[in-house]
Amino acid sequence: MYSIDLNSDMGESFGAYKIGGDEEIIKYVTTANVACGWHAGDPMVMDKVVRMAKERGVMVGAHPGYPDMMGFGRRKMVLSHDEIKNYVRYQIGALAAFTKSYGMKLQHVAPHGAMGNACQYDEDIASAIVEAICEYDKDLIVYYCAGAVLGDIAESKGLRTASEIFADRAYMDDLSLVPRKMEGAMITDEDIAIQRCVKMIKEGKVTSITGKELDIKGDTLCVHGDGPKALAFVQKIREKFTEEGIEIRHL
Amino acid sequence: MYSIDLNSDMGESFGAYKIGGDEEIIKYVTTANVACGWHAGDPMVMDKVVRMAKERGVMVGAHPGYPDMMGFGRRKMVLSHDEIKNYVRYQIGALAAFTKSYGMKLQHVAPHGAMGNACQYDEDIASAIVEAICEYDKDLIVYYCAGAVLGDIAESKGLRTASEIFADRAYMDDLSLVPRKMEGAMITDEDIAIQRCVKMIKEGKVTSITGKELDIKGDTLCVHGDGPKALAFVQKIREKFTEEGIEIRHL
Amino acid sequence: MYSIDLNSDMGESFGAYKIGGDEEIIKYVTTANVACGWHAGDPMVMDKVVRMAKERGVMVGAHPGYPDMMGFGRRKMVLSHDEIKNYVRYQIGALAAFTKSYGMKLQHVAPHGAMGNACQYDEDIASAIVEAICEYDKDLIVYYCAGAVLGDIAESKGLRTASEIFADRAYMDDLSLVPRKMEGAMITDEDIAIQRCVKMIKEGKVTSITGKELDIKGDTLCVHGDGPKALAFVQKIREKFTEEGIEIRHL
Amino acid sequence: MYSIDLNSDMGESFGAYKIGGDEEIIKYVTTANVACGWHAGDPMVMDKVVRMAKERGVMVGAHPGYPDMMGFGRRKMVLSHDEIKNYVRYQIGALAAFTKSYGMKLQHVAPHGAMGNACQYDEDIASAIVEAICEYDKDLIVYYCAGAVLGDIAESKGLRTASEIFADRAYMDDLSLVPRKMEGAMITDEDIAIQRCVKMIKEGKVTSITGKELDIKGDTLCVHGDGPKALAFVQKIREKFTEEGIEIRHL
Repeated sequence: MYSIDLNSDMGESFGAYKIGGDEEIIKYVTTANVACGWHAGDPMVMDKVVRMAKERGVMVGAHPGYPDMMGFGRRKMVLSHDEIKNYVRYQIGALAAFTKSYGMKLQHVAPHGAMGNACQYDEDIASAIVEAICEYDKDLIVYYCAGAVLGDIAESKGLRTASEIFADRAYMDDLSLVPRKMEGAMITDEDIAIQRCVKMIKEGKVTSITGKELDIKGDTLCVHGDGPKALAFVQKIREKFTEEGIEIRHL
Repeated sequence: MYSIDLNSDMGESFGAYKIGGDEEIIKYVTTANVACGWHAGDPMVMDKVVRMAKERGVMVGAHPGYPDMMGFGRRKMVLSHDEIKNYVRYQIGALAAFTKSYGMKLQHVAPHGAMGNACQYDEDIASAIVEAICEYDKDLIVYYCAGAVLGDIAESKGLRTASEIFADRAYMDDLSLVPRKMEGAMITDEDIAIQRCVKMIKEGKVTSITGKELDIKGDTLCVHGDGPKALAFVQKIREKFTEEGIEIRHL
Repeated sequence: MYSIDLNSDMGESFGAYKIGGDEEIIKYVTTANVACGWHAGDPMVMDKVVRMAKERGVMVGAHPGYPDMMGFGRRKMVLSHDEIKNYVRYQIGALAAFTKSYGMKLQHVAPHGAMGNACQYDEDIASAIVEAICEYDKDLIVYYCAGAVLGDIAESKGLRTASEIFADRAYMDDLSLVPRKMEGAMITDEDIAIQRCVKMIKEGKVTSITGKELDIKGDTLCVHGDGPKALAFVQKIREKFTEEGIEIRHL
Repeated sequence: MYSIDLNSDMGESFGAYKIGGDEEIIKYVTTANVACGWHAGDPMVMDKVVRMAKERGVMVGAHPGYPDMMGFGRRKMVLSHDEIKNYVRYQIGALAAFTKSYGMKLQHVAPHGAMGNACQYDEDIASAIVEAICEYDKDLIVYYCAGAVLGDIAESKGLRTASEIFADRAYMDDLSLVPRKMEGAMITDEDIAIQRCVKMIKEGKVTSITGKELDIKGDTLCVHGDGPKALAFVQKIREKFTEEGIEIRHL
């Protein structure tokens, strides 16, 4: 039997500002990556998302980012090892206050945006994040992009990991995601996208943008909840996975 | 045998900005109220203070405040019950990430500045803070100003409390502190200040600004670490307390 | 001939966060109150709105607020006279950098949210704002709620003012707006709302919530641009005003 | 007759946080680079510094930085051309509100920290800053590090410039400053430092860290006001310059 976790970024609203349809997407996923108030989110939003997750049995993980609300955490910042370690630690703890209050266990950590990109290939940044997690709670699972150094470093420190795959993104030969600016970066045909997912999950293979057949491990699939089109796509993924005998369940 | 806890606000530096002499005052206190990054402090500062506290056996508590770094959390903000509850929860969790990482238990919560003032007499604000603490960890101790409603509400919910007294402040007849703008608000004579402390601790009595003899309970004494004069005063307090048979120890 | 200015709050988006349909509402108004990056807005948003205003001949004013992005400037903060004065000065200058760059003159100042409410009746807060404006540029027009103290104080210092009226809000007997929580606060029937506007503009009269006929001066009418319904209402206002011989033009 | 402008970074305090001795250093300089509330400073601080500058006839310039108060604007951030342009524009305008209120003219712009470093050699960043200045006010002078691209680009757009030199820093062969981490980066001997300044001003020459004799242009000398030692050094510079016939005056 095959299985996959479906995760989505959530809790990205901030004060009067709304981003994403958390109330809808939470019906279709098994895991939520919740923003921690640095690049997005605030304590009111965190409380609401964690409460909804509790009600629906959705797992909650921390989605820490750079201290850059104006840039939504997507702008590269050059921070020291200790800054990254302590910033991640702070954000994990802040979110854990909500899961603990609702009698839940914080399940995982999935770095966001520019930090999330950098830690996939930068060993020092990955190490800083892994150290923060190890010192805080060795039971936390590290979500990393399939093939990335973050997974190796987390495993070398004895942490559990989950290899994340993407339905709508093309892969380079080294399993890094094709940059959004490059042609062919996005898999726009939904049926092709889903077939690629099924192949990644059942065969552990994906075809790169240059046509190479690559090994890939997929423990968790990233889906989006912005707008009706994204929601329809998630529903379609669920249907197809069920037909293909892929169970959708959290880790 | 009499005993008293000595607490001080710490971790109030922020980035390149330094406030307070944490490295010095930590040698003389038994408990630190650590800022959580909203009105003061940042993760680098929190990490350093918690590490120093660990090394010296000093207890650590959260010192949450309003989201107002520019006003150092001292300006009144009108927030909803849920906003206060979730803001406190967030800050407690953020600091707890550091104590947990260092194998320490977060000991207490002591609200800061304008929030700290408001929760002493405003039942709704006090309740919001107490709810945050109850849902997060019923073992946390609530620090409150002797005589204030925060203590009553915390105890009514089954939380442990510590009644805080002040060496350098005069009291009104209702045990509230004489506002700083009023004449006589500060006890400037150090010997008188210390004698008042000894009386509060050993006899449970204090003389108000109008001359009334009031009952007061003192579990923890607030001291300051800003500058050489403050440090000298703390050392003098320690000497006198020892002479008077008052043991200085954490709760 | 009667005339009225139509103003709307704009530039309230922030980074990845969108609020309001600036691109649409700007087609129907004569004046924009532009957020200045403290409670909403950022320099990228300010640049875009000012550029659009330039293209359409829409007047631009500053919409300063409290330093509270998380609360959208709607939460009461207790600030000193000098804090308010300097915060307003800062925000006016920041926005004026954009109008100046586009060869426009900053036209007016219209305080936002909790600051905007407080300055209508609090003489000290109103004075702080008026001082900031006087010292910066005596040609700036002060937008105030019809009947409020801000207008009196601005005029007493020799500033030009514009009395603002609301289509969708009921009035108390002292011309203050009926608080949103009270029944009857909002005028929900669009035809009644428009008839009230016409009467305010042509007769200088409005019926209060208790049924009293009050004198009111209307130089500028506040309209909203959030969502298709609000836009349809503005279009309807424009049609009716034209029928009624009320010219829509900026001050 | 030789002359030199003495400039210092000022207004870097923030709320309850104090950095620098503005009240002292302002007595010895001819020009102040004033932080604009993004990496340091706030409107209360800006008001105070501009008022002091007015009283002493000290020229005021904007010292814009990255939106990173926690990192004091010293951490590299990857921002777009338009982000930098609009962020600089915003900060210039914000400070200009204070100079205008005090009847002063904003004199110059001197980018701070990581932005200040990047714009010396990165043509795109330099262009973004120069565009912001050109569109806002073509009379503003651009302060740039002697030899850097920022000066060339500013001049190519018709802006006036001032070439900044440093008393306490060694130079590479390309006139860039020797990075602080490298040995020999700081000129620690005060007499040597001052002799180097005199040579730069009178002969237009400086000896690089490798021993090469380089051409250098010095219009303005950067001095520091942090602590008694820095102040004593500035006083010594003033004395020596007077002996050497170098007039200290603003541009």
